[in-house]
Amino acid sequence: MRKPQPSDKFSFGLWTVGWTAGDPFGEPTRPALDPWAYAEKLAELGAWGFTFHDNDVWAFDASDAERAARVEKLAEAAKAHDLTIEMVTTNTFSHPIFKDGGLTNNDRNIRRFGLKKILRNVDLAAELGATTFVMWGGREGSEYDSSKDLNAAFDRYKEGLDTVAGYIKEKGYNLRIGLEPKPNEPRGDIFLPTVGHALALIAELENGDVVGLNPETGHEQMAGLNYTHALAQGLNAGKLFHIDLNGQSGIKYDQDKVFGHGDLISAFFTVDLLVNGFPNGGPKYEGPIHFDYKPARTDGMDSVWETAAANMEMYLMLAEKAKAFREDPRTQELMRQSGVFELAEPTLAAGESYDDFMNANEDVDVDALAARDYHFVELHQQAMRHLIG
Amino acid sequence: MRKPQPSDKFSFGLWTVGWTAGDPFGEPTRPALDPWAYAEKLAELGAWGFTFHDNDVWAFDASDAERAARVEKLAEAAKAHDLTIEMVTTNTFSHPIFKDGGLTNNDRNIRRFGLKKILRNVDLAAELGATTFVMWGGREGSEYDSSKDLNAAFDRYKEGLDTVAGYIKEKGYNLRIGLEPKPNEPRGDIFLPTVGHALALIAELENGDVVGLNPETGHEQMAGLNYTHALAQGLNAGKLFHIDLNGQSGIKYDQDKVFGHGDLISAFFTVDLLVNGFPNGGPKYEGPIHFDYKPARTDGMDSVWETAAANMEMYLMLAEKAKAFREDPRTQELMRQSGVFELAEPTLAAGESYDDFMNANEDVDVDALAARDYHFVELHQQAMRHLIG
Amino acid sequence: MRKPQPSDKFSFGLWTVGWTAGDPFGEPTRPALDPWAYAEKLAELGAWGFTFHDNDVWAFDASDAERAARVEKLAEAAKAHDLTIEMVTTNTFSHPIFKDGGLTNNDRNIRRFGLKKILRNVDLAAELGATTFVMWGGREGSEYDSSKDLNAAFDRYKEGLDTVAGYIKEKGYNLRIGLEPKPNEPRGDIFLPTVGHALALIAELENGDVVGLNPETGHEQMAGLNYTHALAQGLNAGKLFHIDLNGQSGIKYDQDKVFGHGDLISAFFTVDLLVNGFPNGGPKYEGPIHFDYKPARTDGMDSVWETAAANMEMYLMLAEKAKAFREDPRTQELMRQSGVFELAEPTLAAGESYDDFMNANEDVDVDALAARDYHFVELHQQAMRHLIG
Amino acid sequence: MRKPQPSDKFSFGLWTVGWTAGDPFGEPTRPALDPWAYAEKLAELGAWGFTFHDNDVWAFDASDAERAARVEKLAEAAKAHDLTIEMVTTNTFSHPIFKDGGLTNNDRNIRRFGLKKILRNVDLAAELGATTFVMWGGREGSEYDSSKDLNAAFDRYKEGLDTVAGYIKEKGYNLRIGLEPKPNEPRGDIFLPTVGHALALIAELENGDVVGLNPETGHEQMAGLNYTHALAQGLNAGKLFHIDLNGQSGIKYDQDKVFGHGDLISAFFTVDLLVNGFPNGGPKYEGPIHFDYKPARTDGMDSVWETAAANMEMYLMLAEKAKAFREDPRTQELMRQSGVFELAEPTLAAGESYDDFMNANEDVDVDALAARDYHFVELHQQAMRHLIG
Repeated sequence: MRKPQPSDKFSFGLWTVGWTAGDPFGEPTRPALDPWAYAEKLAELGAWGFTFHDNDVWAFDASDAERAARVEKLAEAAKAHDLTIEMVTTNTFSHPIFKDGGLTNNDRNIRRFGLKKILRNVDLAAELGATTFVMWGGREGSEYDSSKDLNAAFDRYKEGLDTVAGYIKEKGYNLRIGLEPKPNEPRGDIFLPTVGHALALIAELENGDVVGLNPETGHEQMAGLNYTHALAQGLNAGKLFHIDLNGQSGIKYDQDKVFGHGDLISAFFTVDLLVNGFPNGGPKYEGPIHFDYKPARTDGMDSVWETAAANMEMYLMLAEKAKAFREDPRTQELMRQSGVFELAEPTLAAGESYDDFMNANEDVDVDALAARDYHFVELHQQAMRHLIG
Repeated sequence: MRKPQPSDKFSFGLWTVGWTAGDPFGEPTRPALDPWAYAEKLAELGAWGFTFHDNDVWAFDASDAERAARVEKLAEAAKAHDLTIEMVTTNTFSHPIFKDGGLTNNDRNIRRFGLKKILRNVDLAAELGATTFVMWGGREGSEYDSSKDLNAAFDRYKEGLDTVAGYIKEKGYNLRIGLEPKPNEPRGDIFLPTVGHALALIAELENGDVVGLNPETGHEQMAGLNYTHALAQGLNAGKLFHIDLNGQSGIKYDQDKVFGHGDLISAFFTVDLLVNGFPNGGPKYEGPIHFDYKPARTDGMDSVWETAAANMEMYLMLAEKAKAFREDPRTQELMRQSGVFELAEPTLAAGESYDDFMNANEDVDVDALAARDYHFVELHQQAMRHLIG
Repeated sequence: MRKPQPSDKFSFGLWTVGWTAGDPFGEPTRPALDPWAYAEKLAELGAWGFTFHDNDVWAFDASDAERAARVEKLAEAAKAHDLTIEMVTTNTFSHPIFKDGGLTNNDRNIRRFGLKKILRNVDLAAELGATTFVMWGGREGSEYDSSKDLNAAFDRYKEGLDTVAGYIKEKGYNLRIGLEPKPNEPRGDIFLPTVGHALALIAELENGDVVGLNPETGHEQMAGLNYTHALAQGLNAGKLFHIDLNGQSGIKYDQDKVFGHGDLISAFFTVDLLVNGFPNGGPKYEGPIHFDYKPARTDGMDSVWETAAANMEMYLMLAEKAKAFREDPRTQELMRQSGVFELAEPTLAAGESYDDFMNANEDVDVDALAARDYHFVELHQQAMRHLIG
Repeated sequence: MRKPQPSDKFSFGLWTVGWTAGDPFGEPTRPALDPWAYAEKLAELGAWGFTFHDNDVWAFDASDAERAARVEKLAEAAKAHDLTIEMVTTNTFSHPIFKDGGLTNNDRNIRRFGLKKILRNVDLAAELGATTFVMWGGREGSEYDSSKDLNAAFDRYKEGLDTVAGYIKEKGYNLRIGLEPKPNEPRGDIFLPTVGHALALIAELENGDVVGLNPETGHEQMAGLNYTHALAQGLNAGKLFHIDLNGQSGIKYDQDKVFGHGDLISAFFTVDLLVNGFPNGGPKYEGPIHFDYKPARTDGMDSVWETAAANMEMYLMLAEKAKAFREDPRTQELMRQSGVFELAEPTLAAGESYDDFMNANEDVDVDALAARDYHFVELHQQAMRHLIG
């Protein structure tokens, strides 16, 4: 397998390799390094870029001088290793002040505090040349339906997003917001549980033009949903601004495994979409290949780099398989047999009126149509032959 | 408990009491009655309205004359028993011709066939005075990601919905479309898996003004999601056109239990929202209380009516509890303590500019804000005291 | 609602009210008190007993003197407040040394270390008069199937349990082990995922006579399973030694809500079983009513006591409802109609041989039997009327 | 990929290729063939054996003569095509008489009827030379906890199983019973939801020596559990008598996909266990490779045979990969590094007493042990390289 190249645009959150492996039932098992040490190591492994939360780099209560000094060191490391800081995001979930959320906290003073923290980070993101600003509202939610006026919560969520988006536009920053949905954990029910709910909220915004999606593999799968379908609906709506690839083994706590180490077949079709696009053309994702995973808690610092590399290796192996799959003439023939190309043709003819349509004298052989053999399993098995054959 | 009244606007699908109880592993256990016989019995039980799929009333291959005769008999029964036919929907999932869906079938001839079946049913819905036209795309989906060009599928879905919505508008019908999402079953992954995905697609339509939601309790819960949150996001977007109440016990096959017989606390808060509205006011659902459940397969024809009545009794019991809960001054005090009313206040002041906001000299006592005790469990326990105390 | 009494045998883990509310995405939101301070407060609220992990009371690296001093203070507090220390358990999951488990760790030195930690705690449990010794193997498991020789893992698990059980017997302690299953979290797949798997392993032990179950409500529900069914299978096998009551809202991360705040109907039937027993008699649970929940992270120290009290209040409210439900003659009549009492009669007659049975000249009216109306929903609705009517 | 051979011992249920594709929301899409026609075709594809339910071959209400005639034809087809009838099972779930179960039906007359149906089928299984008799209690369960005396239900379940097992022993048949667990569908909660619960019940039987497991891939996965772990616990207990391989995509309705078309990584490790056994040796499964899947409802009769072949092809591809993985010296080295072989060593030394153990003067370097890097992800990635590299 070839080595990762800058042209692969592989990117990692500093909090991924930087996770010290504390979990709800256990203490950290690994030491914390300086953020620039992670960046340096990611560069060695072949990454093109990295991303971070504000408090991955400086402490919540850092002074302005400390903050500036640490940001400078990080920016220098990025430059020294030719790494792109492609996305920045804000931590509005770790500190106790955010225990009921930032943008939808019942306490207005906290909402104002959270919003300022975000806007300050927007300035930094722009300054560092990031083009995506991710917002994960992990604490925006509730465990008890009585805790919230839900209509007010959605109003405040929209107000918060519109404020950030409007600020970006007013400042003229080359930044787009990527919303990251998640169904639950750490809240019992998070307000934007899936890609669908996020897209729906974006459609209600005044400044929604600069707001799109940052879907994470595992988050959609925690609701039992199909990640590739989510990417497709996002692309179809022109809103797939960024992605978070990782692995999840079914509906349970958030696992953040290495990409492809969860549902492998789903990962194959995700990569198929990313590298080959839709069978009949259409919108294509062109952004970074960003990994948001956690090295296993059982593994030590040496393994951390192995696990980071594994994400890229999985992606490259799957990309090679996906390309061969789609290029294979047998695949194309099976896709034709399954009707995959027919779906691109509009159901109504160009200019066909309702009356024309309802009165069209079409000879429909219901029995023949009902008997059509789509051969969907055969086509899928063809994919499996390429994947593991 | 008082008896159901017409003013309660309770409504049932004919297919609910009419389910003959065949399932994937077993044959029917109950006989089928004529559709008007179900309607008559529902009237006796206190229902105000009923709803139906075309093929609940006439067979897929019925002649026009048969269709007309059966529709007439049903309409007469509705009139005789003062029942409102408030919603009509189309079966595009039972016949083998729809095995790969109607609006997103890979086969264009089937898409045209399905669309015509729907439009013909729109005419009937309008003729019978229904005000909602539900579309459940249960067969629009796939088991294998290779089966579909997903971008084309979303394009066709939008085309289909826009055609139906445009037809309604052209004809000047007093009808609104209610989309009913579901995550899976009978397809492995259905294209509009949740309320969020449906709202997102509606936002992309040209004729989306007459397209909204018909969320079903169990369908959202099959994805582990909060049904009341889904209703709230729908209301917040002005799109809660209709509802399907029933019961589901967690993430598994579609159970269609009696309303309240699944997650009872969630049902309580659903009813709380429906009868009391949001704590700070805002949009309110005013439509029928429609039940989409199935009588247990173990139960016979006598029990069918018991189970139908149980839905209404559950709703009425919960409504009484929910009203008392919200009217209790102690509840209001606890809601205040939890900050429920604070969430209605915008985060920014009226006319506050970004600069004003960022430069506002606010004395923020982070530790004090972080220490706020929201008392969410106490408020919830107050609800429990009303529910079961 | 009456106040909790010692005769209710309500008991709490010190780690419940003592949870400082750190979670995978956030820092603690509450301070830690001394263990005896929690005990004192629980006594005030009406608890009869409490339980603890070794490291709830002293630090992992405490000296023997520190350990002894803290245990003494705790025992004094128990005595002063008339609290029973009914159960003790060992923390083999928080310290990094246990990141791959204790009894099934791939590293034999760690297995020996873990086993000693447990045995030392057995001595303490006996000394303090506890009668149950809970073992939760939360770290016994894996995320990757390649990580383990699964046969060896089950062999080591059995060896470890047999060693602890044998030690208890050799010492003559009045202690029984309660295994606590859980499907996942903090490991991807835990080795004893459900009550069934634990019962199965117990049946393979040499010293299984002193090993039984400590099923937790939420843990079974995290696998989508019915907690009351689990208790029943445990009782039927004579192995329900202890219980952990709490609340969980479906298949997701471990929520540890207040008992009854998750699936309320399930909680009602759990209490129905605990207070009323099986309809036809049989084994009955006689142990403590032990709560293993967490106060919400959004709530402060004042609320902690409210949430502890809520567990007992929920139980008492449900117990009252369950008693009234079962005593109601209408319930008894509906149970009879549903055939609940018929199930107690053996299928074969006493002494009936295979030949007698196969040749019995029974007139079976298949159609009549198939048409039986079990009225299960009606009986359930009767329960709902008692629960919320 | 080489063709399936009789030595592969591939076997199929007649109900698999014979599924006519009716589902809860749709009518059958394929015609039914004669059972012997399926057998013949399976032989052509390379299968070694087949299995069936009684009512796959003759109708529920067939006369004795019809039954005999159809069995004879089937036996002749088996002989003509050199197919082994390796397993027989009984349908106690489709006919309305079994709507509340067979062995645990509340109605004793139905329990007797069901038990006779099973015993009659045992005679036939023995007569046809089958060595496994599968019992899937899909209707043994409930939707409402009030429907059952759960203690009586377990007593009746045990009585039923003991009767069948005792009958087999009395008749001297060379047959073993394989229990097939499932968490839900068609009942809300099935009584033996997982492999664990089945093993636990077997341990309570008088004639449990001839009762073991027939675990199905998808059934365990419907509870979010690890299928390979389930097989391992079954093997460890000496109870893995038979297997049902298929595919499932997460926690949802029972999908019965082609083996490997659900969770592919899990399928890989299942095959790894079946072909390579445990890393340190131990019990090994030697029975048939039995597939219990359904051809997709969208696919026609031609595709049915493609899908059957796909199961065998998936197995053979995975077997080849798994062998290469385990034979690779690099894998062995990584397994050693991860401690996989260490787990086989007992935790206590041979003959080590409790006192010796507790007083052993072991120098434990806690920090060093805690810092061990298990490299579990690296080992897993090595498997991935073999699987898709």
